[in-house]
Amino acid sequence: MKKTAPTQFNIHSNARERWSPRAFSPKPVEKEKLQSLFEAARWAASAFNEQPWRFIIGLKNDPSYKKILETLGDWNQRWAGQAPVLIINVAKRTFSHNGTKNGTFKYDLGQAVANLAFEAVNQGLYSHQMSGFDPEKARELFTIPEDFQAISVMAVGYYGNPDDLPADMAEAEAKPRIRKSFNELIFTETFAKTTTLF
Amino acid sequence: MKKTAPTQFNIHSNARERWSPRAFSPKPVEKEKLQSLFEAARWAASAFNEQPWRFIIGLKNDPSYKKILETLGDWNQRWAGQAPVLIINVAKRTFSHNGTKNGTFKYDLGQAVANLAFEAVNQGLYSHQMSGFDPEKARELFTIPEDFQAISVMAVGYYGNPDDLPADMAEAEAKPRIRKSFNELIFTETFAKTTTLF
Repeated sequence: MKKTAPTQFNIHSNARERWSPRAFSPKPVEKEKLQSLFEAARWAASAFNEQPWRFIIGLKNDPSYKKILETLGDWNQRWAGQAPVLIINVAKRTFSHNGTKNGTFKYDLGQAVANLAFEAVNQGLYSHQMSGFDPEKARELFTIPEDFQAISVMAVGYYGNPDDLPADMAEAEAKPRIRKSFNELIFTETFAKTTTLF
Repeated sequence: MKKTAPTQFNIHSNARERWSPRAFSPKPVEKEKLQSLFEAARWAASAFNEQPWRFIIGLKNDPSYKKILETLGDWNQRWAGQAPVLIINVAKRTFSHNGTKNGTFKYDLGQAVANLAFEAVNQGLYSHQMSGFDPEKARELFTIPEDFQAISVMAVGYYGNPDDLPADMAEAEAKPRIRKSFNELIFTETFAKTTTLF
């Protein structure tokens, strides 16, 4: 199922076609495609090139997959267990070169994950990120050190059949994609004053 | 100047070619290209579709540009003042639907900015993000409300002439791009145990 963004201005088709489905196919993702996804994530920008991102991956039927699934909230467990790949996105709170707090550790992780999501489209795959999970359960189950924090969980795979979703989720799946307007987001002179520069 | 990432696995060329230069051309960025950059940012994923991202933009010689430049640290001021476009990336700390704290406001902003950076490559442009700026000065100069936070500043433009950079920056400009290896980043079973799943 395509849900092409109703863009006003021209953007790359991979950005236009990225969306977050719930109807995943059980078809496994090829090893080569997983390599490309993480390769893309790896080359994101980060403050002081810290690369605070770490990923815990599980493939369906292996014990790590089951543990990642357990960290999800009930709503997310209902659909995410169909996806062939689950990933916990983790980030390091401090800078490695001097031990001080990294104010952009989540921001930098977001960029790596956005790169991964973009490459997923490039590979004919879909991704769906979730903040509805228990980061402390993730810490326990995978022995995540104190200096790292699990920020989101992501399902990755091929698109499945939306008719297989529970009724409430099938409805959400078909909803149009909406975003705030340019006027609400881009300012000049002072905050919340819509730019007139372009 | 190209600094193609030395990738081990195949990824989209836009991800491979994105890097953060300091030698920007003074050539203005076309209005249509700026529209595409922010269009790409707008369609990023975010928790509860909150879209916490906001952008304050200045074009060279307008007063907002000068104010954004003032927020930068000395090192960044030395090169960023050549770029035709400066942007402050801002994010909202709380969810609009219930007023509670948004644990992923920086993470979500990071995704929008990564989309923008990717689209920049798509448009033949370069971007360079900086965390070396004073967010409280940005708050004062642009009256950013308490519930929002300036997270980074970004220069955008065409590539310039690296010979115009001060000697120390010209050296940094020519350095190869490096990243942590797959083994250091992607785990299964337990944290820091390199995955063998793919």
